[in-house]
Amino acid sequence: MTTSIPATPALATRARAVIERVRPEVDGGRFPVKRTVGEEVVVEADAFADGHDQLCCLLLHRPLGAPAWAEVPMTLVGNDRWTAGFHVAAPGRHEYSVVAWVDRFLTWRHDIARRQDADDIAAALLVGVELVEAAAGRAAGSAAGELKAWAAELRAAATPEAGRAMGQSASLAVLMATHGERLFVTEYGRVLEVVVDIERGRFSSWYELFPRSAGASEAIHGKFTDVIERLPTIAAMGFDVLYLPPIHPIGREFRKGPNNTLAAGATDPGSPWAIGAAEGGHRDIHPELGSAEDFRRLVGRARELGLDVALDIAFQCAPDHPYVKQHPEWFRHRPDGSIQYAENPPKKYQDIYPFDFESEDWQALWQELKGVVDHWIGEGVRIFRVDNPHTKPFPFWEWLIGAVKAEHPETVFLAEAFTRPKIMHRLAKLGFTQSYTYFTWRNTKTDLTEYLTELSRHDSREYFRPNLWPNTPDILPEFLQYGGRPAFLLRVALAATLGASYGIYGPAYELMEHEPRDPGGEEYLDSEKYQLRQWNLDRPDSLSGYITRINQIRRDNPALQSDWSLRFHDVDNPLMLCYSKAAGDDILVMVANLDPHNVQAGWIDLPLDQLSVPGDAPYQAHDLLSGARFLWQGERNFVRLDPQVSPIHILRLRRRLRSERDFDYFL
Amino acid sequence: MTTSIPATPALATRARAVIERVRPEVDGGRFPVKRTVGEEVVVEADAFADGHDQLCCLLLHRPLGAPAWAEVPMTLVGNDRWTAGFHVAAPGRHEYSVVAWVDRFLTWRHDIARRQDADDIAAALLVGVELVEAAAGRAAGSAAGELKAWAAELRAAATPEAGRAMGQSASLAVLMATHGERLFVTEYGRVLEVVVDIERGRFSSWYELFPRSAGASEAIHGKFTDVIERLPTIAAMGFDVLYLPPIHPIGREFRKGPNNTLAAGATDPGSPWAIGAAEGGHRDIHPELGSAEDFRRLVGRARELGLDVALDIAFQCAPDHPYVKQHPEWFRHRPDGSIQYAENPPKKYQDIYPFDFESEDWQALWQELKGVVDHWIGEGVRIFRVDNPHTKPFPFWEWLIGAVKAEHPETVFLAEAFTRPKIMHRLAKLGFTQSYTYFTWRNTKTDLTEYLTELSRHDSREYFRPNLWPNTPDILPEFLQYGGRPAFLLRVALAATLGASYGIYGPAYELMEHEPRDPGGEEYLDSEKYQLRQWNLDRPDSLSGYITRINQIRRDNPALQSDWSLRFHDVDNPLMLCYSKAAGDDILVMVANLDPHNVQAGWIDLPLDQLSVPGDAPYQAHDLLSGARFLWQGERNFVRLDPQVSPIHILRLRRRLRSERDFDYFL
Repeated sequence: MTTSIPATPALATRARAVIERVRPEVDGGRFPVKRTVGEEVVVEADAFADGHDQLCCLLLHRPLGAPAWAEVPMTLVGNDRWTAGFHVAAPGRHEYSVVAWVDRFLTWRHDIARRQDADDIAAALLVGVELVEAAAGRAAGSAAGELKAWAAELRAAATPEAGRAMGQSASLAVLMATHGERLFVTEYGRVLEVVVDIERGRFSSWYELFPRSAGASEAIHGKFTDVIERLPTIAAMGFDVLYLPPIHPIGREFRKGPNNTLAAGATDPGSPWAIGAAEGGHRDIHPELGSAEDFRRLVGRARELGLDVALDIAFQCAPDHPYVKQHPEWFRHRPDGSIQYAENPPKKYQDIYPFDFESEDWQALWQELKGVVDHWIGEGVRIFRVDNPHTKPFPFWEWLIGAVKAEHPETVFLAEAFTRPKIMHRLAKLGFTQSYTYFTWRNTKTDLTEYLTELSRHDSREYFRPNLWPNTPDILPEFLQYGGRPAFLLRVALAATLGASYGIYGPAYELMEHEPRDPGGEEYLDSEKYQLRQWNLDRPDSLSGYITRINQIRRDNPALQSDWSLRFHDVDNPLMLCYSKAAGDDILVMVANLDPHNVQAGWIDLPLDQLSVPGDAPYQAHDLLSGARFLWQGERNFVRLDPQVSPIHILRLRRRLRSERDFDYFL
Repeated sequence: MTTSIPATPALATRARAVIERVRPEVDGGRFPVKRTVGEEVVVEADAFADGHDQLCCLLLHRPLGAPAWAEVPMTLVGNDRWTAGFHVAAPGRHEYSVVAWVDRFLTWRHDIARRQDADDIAAALLVGVELVEAAAGRAAGSAAGELKAWAAELRAAATPEAGRAMGQSASLAVLMATHGERLFVTEYGRVLEVVVDIERGRFSSWYELFPRSAGASEAIHGKFTDVIERLPTIAAMGFDVLYLPPIHPIGREFRKGPNNTLAAGATDPGSPWAIGAAEGGHRDIHPELGSAEDFRRLVGRARELGLDVALDIAFQCAPDHPYVKQHPEWFRHRPDGSIQYAENPPKKYQDIYPFDFESEDWQALWQELKGVVDHWIGEGVRIFRVDNPHTKPFPFWEWLIGAVKAEHPETVFLAEAFTRPKIMHRLAKLGFTQSYTYFTWRNTKTDLTEYLTELSRHDSREYFRPNLWPNTPDILPEFLQYGGRPAFLLRVALAATLGASYGIYGPAYELMEHEPRDPGGEEYLDSEKYQLRQWNLDRPDSLSGYITRINQIRRDNPALQSDWSLRFHDVDNPLMLCYSKAAGDDILVMVANLDPHNVQAGWIDLPLDQLSVPGDAPYQAHDLLSGARFLWQGERNFVRLDPQVSPIHILRLRRRLRSERDFDYFL
């Protein structure tokens, strides 16, 4: 029986090369990988063909929408694995793929070199002549002439061996790489994408504050103008993102009182996440904070100081949000006509209605919510912290972020999803630039090592960019409740050196706020979520100087500006953590005492060869925090840390030490 | 700016469930997985949705082409991972996929159970009533009535709490699983395939012999009729596949002489892989072997004895193959008009022309070669050993095997590709039922453990089915050259117990043929590839009895009939190897002495809990090879093996031991 040869290119073809396992690739190309401007995308692929013929393998790449592919020859690294790379230059989407084919000229060149008898070489030489002549026919200009000359020379070779030697010429190979025939080319079959973000997508230092508490006293509602006055201080601390909780009118119905009580007093400000009231909704500004003009001035002044103002995107409504009356179809009504407030029984959020994304009018809802983001982009915002994205449908976020970034590739979206791992990963895959993490609850050596290794080394790093927070307005971790000042010193230093992106909720952090509302709970006592607070920023024990120093170290050291180089190293003390980050010559080794109560000491063990530090000469470990300089030699060195003084060393390894050779007398 | 909501279902949808990482899946669904008739396909998937709603997740499956999907509810195993399975009943292709949705009834049922105050429960109860009423409207027959009754009862519940309790009813849940609305269903997006093979695809014992040597003396060319006479002996040894090297006319041009010499004498038979001569080509039979009728009798008699006759598919031609004249376009001509013989310089196969798969007439070539396979299927053959598939294009094999198996799903193709790992894997992915392996060269404890763990445990086991050969006509490994009788005893036992499929090239194996043609080489001296041999099958030292015993053990013990249960266990002697295989109650532990020269002994360490053997009572280890029974207790037991007696124990663990409780007196 004759079976027809199907038209499917994959199945019926003379293309003999196979391309498999192209990396990076997320879920078979379903999602893009992420890079920031200037970074390299190193691409690998398995490529091979039947038989013994030689392959040519090319990486193709281009900015999305560009008419032509740029080609980069891939290099065989062994075991049929090829590699090449390209740099991404501008925010937006970039695409790449791989092609390969059995190359007749490369095969001929390789093959003739192994032939042994003259007749055989002579017969093979003619094959090469034909290939070069055919290339000459395809080429134009000077290349055509050069190739013709090569063909003539090969044909006129004095001996077969002489012709064979000519055939190995590198300049002939260059000509043939351009003009040789690409016959039966195999395409990988998928075009993969990179989302290119601004540098802040990879390296950012966030400071969160409640503008409501920036007033002159606890009785006076803080305003944008107060925040503007504080901007130089925040910038001087070295932060580059100032993140504000929602700035919109706050609902009055079911408004929460201090400490999340159900009955708010007449002057209680309510939770800023209960968005919407008579004064307006998600595009409006809470009148007590100021005007739209004030907000624009805040954004502008911040930009002058190198700070991005990041807004909170919380897609939910107070019961008196204008949407509730204007678009009742966007909320799910129960049979009794009521709208169910947000809840995860038995937890209740009586002051918040969720949107019903299963609404018949869902497309208008999607458009409206995108309009909210567009509005704030119009007001100068490009960084958004998205509240609870895991309680809204995944397809919505993929569409929203995709659509916004298509118009504004410079935007950054941080997913505040403290939820199950696969949900957090999905959100990262479908477009969130950065993600909150479990770092907030990772305190022990084992936990930190395992989790940060996962974040920095596993394939998921291609799409999941961690942003490490030691605290948030919702989370005062037990470690900070009980660890005293050393705990605060430690956790911010860990966040800032383990993660290229990190953030703190201040001034609660630098002022070491550590009283929980309920014993065993993680809510702050007298949380700013429900009331105004007055912070004494001038307190002598403030950590602001320490944090300033850490942020300065981050700015000075490229090693701390990306995550992928993180490696953990042995310390013979389970309460001490040692890890390194490197970028070129910038090699940092961090050694931390995880015990906030006791002095700890131990021997650390550094793989000097991996760190490119010669093992046979002394080297200097310069603590960038304290200024101390230690003289070390070899892989094992002793470290002692008093948490009351400093629970961490941030050591820059300096290979060059002065010796007698530097002394005048010696010259 | 308003961005249109794209039509792509993945991007713009109210489907809130996400399905990811469905397993098994090969290369994103590009290739099918493999099973044999009666086996289960256990499918896993990540599935989750936004928020706190409850998911329903179904596995769909059907034989390829069946009109409707069978549905199997998937069970949550933790961390958003779901599982379910199905059995495959017949050879052919079967397909499967996963769907999921946020189920309103399940969500309601889960949610109302956690509500605390009566008003709240009462309001929620009405939601349930509406869902049940809607289902009643969709249902027909008795289900409609039952659902209506449920709705009425829920509505009339004496108290909200009583209604809530009713809502948790299991029988209501069953009704709602069938008739509840499936709203906004997420499909995985890929339909995955299983190739279902006959049992021999998974469990087979191959015996290879050269019919040319079955004659009465070394001077008489063996015939199919001679092989027919030997069939009962081969079947009695326990083999189920008799594999014959090519049986076609052998070329005369450039025919090879004994030991691969270039000048063949007038009576030298040549290599059977140099296919084609005046007498015919790939569809014809070498006249000295007999007629087509003889071949059919051989196949028929073998079948009566439970043996499949497997043929060699070697797609290449002797220079005097009829194709060379009839289809010159199927061969690549050099500029001097000659056809290049097969070679991998400096290796030369002067008696063989390869096909040019880049030929302009490639489609006719593909059809012709498929015709060859179809021809032999017509002659009763269903198992093929394919010679050097890695020197023919991958798309050709995918098409050929796919097309043949679409018509004859009972066919089995064994890939004889001793080549680079990724090429071997690609061939397995694209359709080969079984694959030769590197087992032939794996002799040490480390090598065997690593390689067999890869074969039996890694994801590649979904498509790569190993067939382990201790020798082939091309490969006499050094271990057999120097290890004496113990080496032959050991290697066949390892192959037969490490692999559910294995084979030997006999009678060279059972007669311990061990002289290489060249020192340091792996070619047999006086190889049957180039000359007739006379084998004395009655030699008293023949291993045939030992091999018979091993094959009997394989037939008696399901544990040895599949590969996936293989586990290696500790032995405190680097020259000893311990591993187990299990299938239900059939638990086998193999302990081998890898040193053919010395007695070795050691303590083995068995994870009794994994093997389902109670650790607190003695158990019996019954050596199925020698009949010896050892009384063991606990995880560590002592084993000593004299390679001259037997280099391996094949121990069946027997949990039940007679004790005083079995003795009459005790009753």
